[in-house]
Amino acid sequence: MDDIKIFLSEKDIPRKWYNLAADLPTAVPPPVGPDGKPITPEVLAPIFPMNLIEQEVSLKRWIDIPEGIIEILYRWRPSPLRRARYLEKYLKTPARIYYKDESMSPPGSHKPNTAVAQAWYNKEFGIKKLITETGAGQWGSALAFACNLLGLECKVYMVRISFDQKPLRKSMMKIWGAECVASPSDETEFGRKILKEMPDTPGSLGIAISEAIEETVKDTSGKTRYSLGSVLNHVMLHQTIIGLEAKKQLEIAGEKKVDVVIGCAGGGSNFAGLSFPFVHDKINGADITIIPTEPTACPTMTKGPFAYDYGDSACQTPLLAMYTLGHTFVPPPIHAGGLRYHGLAPIVSQAIVEGLIEPRSYHQLQCYESAILWARTEGPLCAPETSHAITCVIEEAVKAREEGKEKVILFNYSGHGLMDLAGYEKFLSGELTDYHLPEGEMAKSIGELDGLPRPAAKKSGKW
Amino acid sequence: MDDIKIFLSEKDIPRKWYNLAADLPTAVPPPVGPDGKPITPEVLAPIFPMNLIEQEVSLKRWIDIPEGIIEILYRWRPSPLRRARYLEKYLKTPARIYYKDESMSPPGSHKPNTAVAQAWYNKEFGIKKLITETGAGQWGSALAFACNLLGLECKVYMVRISFDQKPLRKSMMKIWGAECVASPSDETEFGRKILKEMPDTPGSLGIAISEAIEETVKDTSGKTRYSLGSVLNHVMLHQTIIGLEAKKQLEIAGEKKVDVVIGCAGGGSNFAGLSFPFVHDKINGADITIIPTEPTACPTMTKGPFAYDYGDSACQTPLLAMYTLGHTFVPPPIHAGGLRYHGLAPIVSQAIVEGLIEPRSYHQLQCYESAILWARTEGPLCAPETSHAITCVIEEAVKAREEGKEKVILFNYSGHGLMDLAGYEKFLSGELTDYHLPEGEMAKSIGELDGLPRPAAKKSGKW
Repeated sequence: MDDIKIFLSEKDIPRKWYNLAADLPTAVPPPVGPDGKPITPEVLAPIFPMNLIEQEVSLKRWIDIPEGIIEILYRWRPSPLRRARYLEKYLKTPARIYYKDESMSPPGSHKPNTAVAQAWYNKEFGIKKLITETGAGQWGSALAFACNLLGLECKVYMVRISFDQKPLRKSMMKIWGAECVASPSDETEFGRKILKEMPDTPGSLGIAISEAIEETVKDTSGKTRYSLGSVLNHVMLHQTIIGLEAKKQLEIAGEKKVDVVIGCAGGGSNFAGLSFPFVHDKINGADITIIPTEPTACPTMTKGPFAYDYGDSACQTPLLAMYTLGHTFVPPPIHAGGLRYHGLAPIVSQAIVEGLIEPRSYHQLQCYESAILWARTEGPLCAPETSHAITCVIEEAVKAREEGKEKVILFNYSGHGLMDLAGYEKFLSGELTDYHLPEGEMAKSIGELDGLPRPAAKKSGKW
Repeated sequence: MDDIKIFLSEKDIPRKWYNLAADLPTAVPPPVGPDGKPITPEVLAPIFPMNLIEQEVSLKRWIDIPEGIIEILYRWRPSPLRRARYLEKYLKTPARIYYKDESMSPPGSHKPNTAVAQAWYNKEFGIKKLITETGAGQWGSALAFACNLLGLECKVYMVRISFDQKPLRKSMMKIWGAECVASPSDETEFGRKILKEMPDTPGSLGIAISEAIEETVKDTSGKTRYSLGSVLNHVMLHQTIIGLEAKKQLEIAGEKKVDVVIGCAGGGSNFAGLSFPFVHDKINGADITIIPTEPTACPTMTKGPFAYDYGDSACQTPLLAMYTLGHTFVPPPIHAGGLRYHGLAPIVSQAIVEGLIEPRSYHQLQCYESAILWARTEGPLCAPETSHAITCVIEEAVKAREEGKEKVILFNYSGHGLMDLAGYEKFLSGELTDYHLPEGEMAKSIGELDGLPRPAAKKSGKW
């Protein structure tokens, strides 16, 4: 066994995804319309291909990964499991810290795990073009990468402020052949409306989603669909390959038990990808602490209610039962752009309702301190999102030291920070100061949820 | 055997470096002073630690890699050997293309292989601080990374134009705890002199080297030394771990013979690192074509004479026998900053003189076309330097197709392009046009070599 890194051979890649929906003791409340009535799969047909819609509502525990997808995943998977020995040593902790390194994919994060799967299913369904939106650019570049490999056209509406501030993410999409436009754009009715009302708007993810969906449904050729990088069940499903690989690798490392599993959560997909196979074990009696982490600047899981809310700011999507700060909430402009989403995947939300997972939140400054400590002990530069997982890892490792307890901690190293060094620079220069969480605005956006249907927060009471 | 990637276990890491100087049929001419007389190792003592100076002049074939260095290399080594199956398929070539992926180190290139070794030897010698210069920032960030791991102070003089244009490389060094100042600076006599004469100068590598050496020798505590990222024998030596690993991996892949070995060459270290173990085989009778590639914008190997020249523009270093365009030559501002050096490592130069290796040059535009083809077939975004190797790979793979010959091509994927996307953007926008090679200036700077001592170009005549 190697000391620092555990690789799997290509033949050991998991052949099935794990679907937590099959095992949750209480079902995720269904998506509903504004009238509170469950929507039918057919409503989604102009937006997603039917094979993905079927996956979205599936209750099958194990779902075969098509060989065509596995062949593409081989390009960078199985991803390495690494042991953070240098951080352990620095912290003088008896804990053994492992991390699944998802930063090694060409776009630099876990996102291509689902981008490739979605592009493949769309192609199978006869689709020629995918349209999506992106905030900071991680998802847009992952979908551009996947569409290029499968020979699909790809168009990305990128939030204008990121389009202007992060031109390199845009270049990345262009290199992989995707078209990337700033949103709001004059290419959609909704975009033109916004531009007329607010010509200088920096844009928002809500506006970008609206434009992407508008262009998708307007194309009646039947050859165009929309793609989403998080939140939905099938996205979480595709990411479970991370946790399934990690289990095999921990076995090779000789670990019989994992005590703590940690991942940062914006929409929830990297957290779900690593943790769901362990949530499965917990449901079956294992004693595991499973922690999704988020910024205190956007405390969806730790301060939001469990409610029905729209996935986008323009109220175009069905209502989803989830932890949410309200679709009009605008969080402070922290650097972890991937953690600024107002909601959280319904299936992750339901696991919180059940008590199976226990969210924590951390301040951006503490997270940058952790990122610097990580770089100076382990070496690599992590994404600002990932630093929210590392902060929790440090907390747990210190706790193990104080309690004098051996412990196995596993976390998801969701992406590298090479495209996000500006945030580090600001932190090191002392320019990154405390932010003001707009509690009043948050109370207001949460208050707006009162006008919407309410899901019952059902739980089995076992956890 | 995996289809796409071949990993080695940590225990299979090479335990010795290979020193080509032991096998070259003709010796590399010694460094000399302006009087033409060989310099003694003692002259270098205030600049480099004695253990590295001994390595610099060693003629031992195999040199043990200290366990302390191996332990650090484990963080990212052995590096993967990958098969470029998708490029092969696209080119419809019977050639099998393999590449050694050096982009996976935390600083993103092959540079830390020697940075870590140099920092380790300096620490052994009692040194507390290393000073260096960097152009585009690859070397500076690698040394910052290494010094951080070994607890040494690190100071980097970064050419002003890069300091201003590539602020993220500077942030990278800062994250790893290094001090990075723009050169010319007011921290050295030479820097102040230049600033007085040319307050708006963009700086140059020559000026930065001069400042780094001045600050090093001025510190008479005996605790400070200078470090160089290429050109010198001990740097080439440290990089041979790349080719030694590749040999083991090709054996696992079932390849009995390599036909073509390719690497881009600026100072020469990534090329030497991969190729020297194969040059060894060629000296011993193997039929291998070994190709260093360079930009037509800085055609050191293909248009320069073999001559004694200074390593820096300020004429502070000893004279080295090498292919050179003259130390005053300023190449066009191509994006492959690492390939803009006027000279070439003496030991690589001597291998050219011998006919053991056969340089080629490529135009920047053709190289960007190759980089885009690489990204769209294989996936990852390569460094602009690396694209000069890929262009040659494509040329050789097409030749194999035309000749209908099976062939094994191996090349060094020296670094990723995530910090260099601006060049891609310019290329895709059509803003990157042909450049004008200043042939007149080149003739002039080459002409200036006439005033210096001349080395005899000795060769055995076997190749």
